[in-house]
Amino acid sequence: MELTILGSNSATPIFNRHPTAQVLSLHNNLYLIDCGEATQMQLMRYKVKMSRISCIFISHLHGDHYLGLTGLLFTMHLNGRTQELHLFAQQELMDILELQFRLSATVLRFNLIFHPLRHYSSQIIFEDQSVKVKSIIMNHRIPCAGFVFTSKPVKGNLIIEKLRKYNVPVELYNRIKEGDDFVTETGELIPSSEFCLPPSDAVSYAFCSDTRYSESILPDISRVDLLYHEATFLHDMAERAEATFHTTARQAAQIAVKASVKKLLIGHFSARYRDLEPLLKEARSVFSNTELAIEGLTFKVG
Amino acid sequence: MELTILGSNSATPIFNRHPTAQVLSLHNNLYLIDCGEATQMQLMRYKVKMSRISCIFISHLHGDHYLGLTGLLFTMHLNGRTQELHLFAQQELMDILELQFRLSATVLRFNLIFHPLRHYSSQIIFEDQSVKVKSIIMNHRIPCAGFVFTSKPVKGNLIIEKLRKYNVPVELYNRIKEGDDFVTETGELIPSSEFCLPPSDAVSYAFCSDTRYSESILPDISRVDLLYHEATFLHDMAERAEATFHTTARQAAQIAVKASVKKLLIGHFSARYRDLEPLLKEARSVFSNTELAIEGLTFKVG
Repeated sequence: MELTILGSNSATPIFNRHPTAQVLSLHNNLYLIDCGEATQMQLMRYKVKMSRISCIFISHLHGDHYLGLTGLLFTMHLNGRTQELHLFAQQELMDILELQFRLSATVLRFNLIFHPLRHYSSQIIFEDQSVKVKSIIMNHRIPCAGFVFTSKPVKGNLIIEKLRKYNVPVELYNRIKEGDDFVTETGELIPSSEFCLPPSDAVSYAFCSDTRYSESILPDISRVDLLYHEATFLHDMAERAEATFHTTARQAAQIAVKASVKKLLIGHFSARYRDLEPLLKEARSVFSNTELAIEGLTFKVG
Repeated sequence: MELTILGSNSATPIFNRHPTAQVLSLHNNLYLIDCGEATQMQLMRYKVKMSRISCIFISHLHGDHYLGLTGLLFTMHLNGRTQELHLFAQQELMDILELQFRLSATVLRFNLIFHPLRHYSSQIIFEDQSVKVKSIIMNHRIPCAGFVFTSKPVKGNLIIEKLRKYNVPVELYNRIKEGDDFVTETGELIPSSEFCLPPSDAVSYAFCSDTRYSESILPDISRVDLLYHEATFLHDMAERAEATFHTTARQAAQIAVKASVKKLLIGHFSARYRDLEPLLKEARSVFSNTELAIEGLTFKVG
């Protein structure tokens, strides 16, 4: 699992920093998280193939988190996409999209499958063979969801020498990998695990933006490998953070400590900070394994 | 009058070319024409002050001509704008904006004055002391307007030596500039024009995008100083141009010839052309005074 930052500025783009958008990569699938203005240009800039995006998750309907979505969908359409696309967002986003499609006389060439988010509880909103996604509730000025992605353990690859040693027929390889044991010609039972490398561990990534400092999210993000938490302000602006439903760098680090996460990424930087180092320094003074979510950077999860 | 190109690609951004947006500058006022995605970033890149934009004109509701508008309005709001802003566009654009404002719980700090465009005739849609703007009807797949900007002649500056020669009292200077004649102590009548430099000529700019080749616009754009006309395709794609309600470079130049304009700018380039020189060459073979609308370039009108 890898996370690439496409933008992590709050509210307005400035200092060549773009509004929120991230891509999570897992087993050749891409999951786009938020889609601020110019996300499609950022995808091109960082050579992320938009055709590989299978799901888009929109946290909330402030412009800096979704205004790039319509342009991205139009471009996917014009590029001839036929593969279905899953979109997770507040119900009313579809009202905007449908109006924009109708007024531009656009009928998408691909199936856009919309999954409205319910904002009153945390819940599993998506699950396939490689990942499980849970929505969690942020404490923001308008309805806002966070997302926790947990990969499923991947079965270890087969050890070809062992298979040959016991003369396992090739047609049984897949079943053995799936967990079937093998009985030799002499009646000896060899457990599946003996033919396979150890399975990979599950890893987890939590995306928490935008939100006030809120400990109610702790159970949902406990012990994740990577936590992205908004840190709009330095702590000397704690009152403004509270009033505008945002978090300070120190508070983001306190959440990381209390949730016992492995690593913290901070982002959603206010336009007042040209230099981001003070935000990093403040967070690291509380939780040392912190990094800035700088666009263009890719972080390995786990 | 000066025109700065912020973007002139069609449909999708590619090769670092942005969708349509232009700024017309006249007497310290800026008029924004179309507002494709990332226009606010382009304004910053080319150091165009968004606070000086007094009017925005949106030709039609295909995404590549307006998807940057909401982000720009949010940024003006967050930057504390209080000056009113005039927006000219199809009625339904306000439905989109109002939905986006409501869902983000945004009440603009400034007065957004909306002027719905009527698409059934060409007409004056805006007039102030320095410019007159006429909407004209494009021939496109959805309702689409072009815009013709005509500056008003500016009175010539006073010639201070002449005023002193005839002992004109300072308190009369403004009235003389406005056209009052002057009577000397000896009863001699000196006409206003003798105290003033010659007035500047009116200049005119016509924006025509998106449209099929259409001679019905000729009366409205006749003899303009600068014509921007879309030229999405080379003429070997004339059938595709016709089918998609676009124009070829050759056709754009034919319009320039028939309208007897002084200079032609072509733009709205298809994503299939990395190299734009063939489009320029084709247009120049018909109308030599043609330029490419390359973003970042500023063209003097007249």
